[in-house]
Amino acid sequence: MANKTLVTAEPNKQELTITREFDAPRELVFRAHVEPELYVQWVGPNDLEMSIQKLDAVDGGTFEFTHKRGGHSYRFFGSYHEVLKPERIIGTFEFDGLPERGHVILGKTSFEELPGNRCRLVHQSVFFSVDDRDGMVQSGMERGVAEGYNKLDTLLEKQVGSTASA
Amino acid sequence: MANKTLVTAEPNKQELTITREFDAPRELVFRAHVEPELYVQWVGPNDLEMSIQKLDAVDGGTFEFTHKRGGHSYRFFGSYHEVLKPERIIGTFEFDGLPERGHVILGKTSFEELPGNRCRLVHQSVFFSVDDRDGMVQSGMERGVAEGYNKLDTLLEKQVGSTASA
Repeated sequence: MANKTLVTAEPNKQELTITREFDAPRELVFRAHVEPELYVQWVGPNDLEMSIQKLDAVDGGTFEFTHKRGGHSYRFFGSYHEVLKPERIIGTFEFDGLPERGHVILGKTSFEELPGNRCRLVHQSVFFSVDDRDGMVQSGMERGVAEGYNKLDTLLEKQVGSTASA
Repeated sequence: MANKTLVTAEPNKQELTITREFDAPRELVFRAHVEPELYVQWVGPNDLEMSIQKLDAVDGGTFEFTHKRGGHSYRFFGSYHEVLKPERIIGTFEFDGLPERGHVILGKTSFEELPGNRCRLVHQSVFFSVDDRDGMVQSGMERGVAEGYNKLDTLLEKQVGSTASA
């Protein structure tokens, strides 16, 4: 049975949580979040073309990537506060396509080991307001996140396979 | 009448707000937040010795400073997501004296112009949990913040004076 992406957003709270299990060791799932050549292969919805302008996943580093569809491009950027291999990534995140800047998100992605070389990812985003959180949920992020993780499943399967056969 | 520091922390919310007016133009109040030689003179409670290890207040920059009292030292550090002169500073913040890492705060400091060359500072901090927020409030941060802003008053008075006489 395929692993499901669960997005939780309680009413009137300025946070959301995403939970997803993967059939791969957490070291690999973590690497897919910090190595640009892996990250570019899975983040975002199926129908967008992903490119990375910068991904310096270290304490105090920054990132910037762009999703393109047709003539439209959507830029995302932020700072890494902490990159603790292979446990946790904490940093800021902003989408520059909003009517104004300043709607920044603080995110924490935790990678937990599960029995059988599996992994649970728990991501928490906190927002400056409930409206910011609701806007994010209503933007269709859930589909994009779920499609991204499905692409990550495929990528991890190849990685696990190549590790096993190495 | 002296300007007062107002800290607001509503029950069960994972945020707090600090509001403070200053009898100085916002350009000067902003500068006192981004120039290390000014910042070192006012941040923190009266009874702590402040030193700055790094203050690179630009988009994607980082900071680190230490408060010392007797044999104890308290380190604070984080990343700048956005530094928009003279309007706004958004970034992360962490105190490394907690029992564990990861209790990171996202802060937004806005500098609003008021009539009469005055300024209102509004700072919002959002936390990963209500407990994190409550811990911060109970740490005595209110006194430290108020004492720091009182020192900033004195510093700004000198700056305004030197500008006026220049």
